[in-house]
Amino acid sequence: MENEPLLMLPGPVPMPERVRAAMMRQAINHRGKEFSGVYADCVRILKAAFGTGNDLFVISGSGTAAMEAAVGNFGRGRKIACLVNGKFGERLYKISQRYGDAQEIASEWGTPLDLGRLEEALSSGAEMVTLVHNETSAGIKNPAEKIGKIARRHDALLVMDAITSVGGDEVRADAWGADVVVVGSQKCLAAPAGLSAISVSTRAWERMTEPRPFYLDLAAYRKSATAKLMETPYTPAVPLFMALREACLIMEEEGLSERIARHRRMADAVRAAAGAWGLPLFPKIDADHAYSNTATAIMLPPGVEDAGFRGTVKKMGIEIAGGQDHLKGKIFRIGSMGAVSAPEILATIAAVQYSLKVHGYQVKGDGVMEAAGVLG
Amino acid sequence: MENEPLLMLPGPVPMPERVRAAMMRQAINHRGKEFSGVYADCVRILKAAFGTGNDLFVISGSGTAAMEAAVGNFGRGRKIACLVNGKFGERLYKISQRYGDAQEIASEWGTPLDLGRLEEALSSGAEMVTLVHNETSAGIKNPAEKIGKIARRHDALLVMDAITSVGGDEVRADAWGADVVVVGSQKCLAAPAGLSAISVSTRAWERMTEPRPFYLDLAAYRKSATAKLMETPYTPAVPLFMALREACLIMEEEGLSERIARHRRMADAVRAAAGAWGLPLFPKIDADHAYSNTATAIMLPPGVEDAGFRGTVKKMGIEIAGGQDHLKGKIFRIGSMGAVSAPEILATIAAVQYSLKVHGYQVKGDGVMEAAGVLG
Repeated sequence: MENEPLLMLPGPVPMPERVRAAMMRQAINHRGKEFSGVYADCVRILKAAFGTGNDLFVISGSGTAAMEAAVGNFGRGRKIACLVNGKFGERLYKISQRYGDAQEIASEWGTPLDLGRLEEALSSGAEMVTLVHNETSAGIKNPAEKIGKIARRHDALLVMDAITSVGGDEVRADAWGADVVVVGSQKCLAAPAGLSAISVSTRAWERMTEPRPFYLDLAAYRKSATAKLMETPYTPAVPLFMALREACLIMEEEGLSERIARHRRMADAVRAAAGAWGLPLFPKIDADHAYSNTATAIMLPPGVEDAGFRGTVKKMGIEIAGGQDHLKGKIFRIGSMGAVSAPEILATIAAVQYSLKVHGYQVKGDGVMEAAGVLG
Repeated sequence: MENEPLLMLPGPVPMPERVRAAMMRQAINHRGKEFSGVYADCVRILKAAFGTGNDLFVISGSGTAAMEAAVGNFGRGRKIACLVNGKFGERLYKISQRYGDAQEIASEWGTPLDLGRLEEALSSGAEMVTLVHNETSAGIKNPAEKIGKIARRHDALLVMDAITSVGGDEVRADAWGADVVVVGSQKCLAAPAGLSAISVSTRAWERMTEPRPFYLDLAAYRKSATAKLMETPYTPAVPLFMALREACLIMEEEGLSERIARHRRMADAVRAAAGAWGLPLFPKIDADHAYSNTATAIMLPPGVEDAGFRGTVKKMGIEIAGGQDHLKGKIFRIGSMGAVSAPEILATIAAVQYSLKVHGYQVKGDGVMEAAGVLG
């Protein structure tokens, strides 16, 4: 064990030693065969995790950069219908406002998306839909497959933020009709922060818009990444690529379906603990929407003060997340992404349960044993 | 010695072990005091290297991202005069075309900039000038101070790419009147590739344009980086920040003027070797323009084939650069940036001298001894 806080956040998450050690390498020339091989490994494994046969590129920039690449390459001047039920849906809407004629289709955070209004927007000429698959700000998983069908029916492009689901939950970009899909490195992939990846369908390539951003111009990415030599158009963050390759190899070794099952089991354990404590989960789900399998949002009990509550957990060496924006002080969130497994979950549940008690909330039942029952 | 090629390129360059080791750290939360301290150290030391008291931010993206941030935040819709005498000047022109009404003021690569045409463009209403301080594609250093005075006289903003000079040659952003200045991490700073930094003058802030790119929106960077807590608007590439901090501390320990003097000495040694060999330097300098002190561009002798020549050098474990674009096969370039000092220079000169001989060029004199004479 290292003397570092255990990050049980919806990203960044702890990295396996193999991943971190890969960054120690001396600088290499990114115009050459070795780097090309590293990049190719990332692309091959990420394509499987995206569920896509489309082109896929790694971007030296965070998930937000990849979101902007999606909108900025295919949405300039377009009518864009932005589905919003949390912070990252809002971010896609804000980005869309800079490039096109964006319409926000907002639901309360953590409540189902309004697919009726989506249909209306598409009938009124929207040519692109933006969707967050797994909205960690609210702990809700949105119905990507259903939305993909709606978008296809109206011949609109679907941009999907799968930043916190790829590698931790099922993503089937091609089967769902998601044309442009993005992931971040520091989430379920358990790689360092600073990279993102984006896949692009043939339909999307055929509908590129202009002018595009420069650093994030996907035409340049496509030109530089050839079967013969995989390069990036501009200098890549080489140590992060080295680390991402290791993280991808670990994912491949574990097996994607095993990895997804592990993520589900961990989220089940967290949800079981919340149930035992008598604390409701934050999202209001329905037949289409589900609880996130990578980050669980739980109502903070009345009277428990957020900073003190999470501070006590942190004293035990564990960082969990609070609510963002208007949910600050109202919910807390436990990430269960990447490399973490039973020991980290059990420790987290125990620390949270203790802190709830210390801060005046009498838990209804023993969340630790409930979680152990799921994990054991 | 590690069994890695010695990169004597105009970036990326070898990193000190301390810099690489900093990346091994476990993930930390980038919303917190520790990361804030890391970021603050980088900013403090980089401000000294930029010669600026202006705001300065670190961007998780390459130097090209910082170039785009410069043009994209201050040049939208503006008339932009782009000074071009090499590849990176061209890049700034290409970026400027996506945002504003860009006018290329082109000279042959490696020849003096046309300051007369710059005056004309400014008299005709150009509101922004783009300049590459140290143009490594051609090994020429452009007269930033003089151009700064011209820009000021016409009340235009000066955007300066100092990607390959900051930390290796004298840069005085404020004294020269450079409003927006950018650097890359993998050049004279000897940090890993993947970060860049940008400084912004008050004059520039007052002239921000809209709409701005999203990931590179400097208003968001300014809002997130406060005296109380230094944060980035979106997830930063944390391991690279850790490494950049170490690289900056090393620069501070060495002393900026000592570091610049060391870079000059190394470039002097390379130039002395070229002179001894009887090979002309590529740039055509004048009273205003100078040879680069961080990358030396040398004419490849007629009859010596580039790939074979550099291949022989590479067999000895050393990578030097060829020419880019239309200079491919006509010049070779030796970077002398960052942590490299006499041993690396001597080894490189020896390997190049041997390869020149092997590939049929009879050197006029002993470049190794000439270089040693400068370094010893």
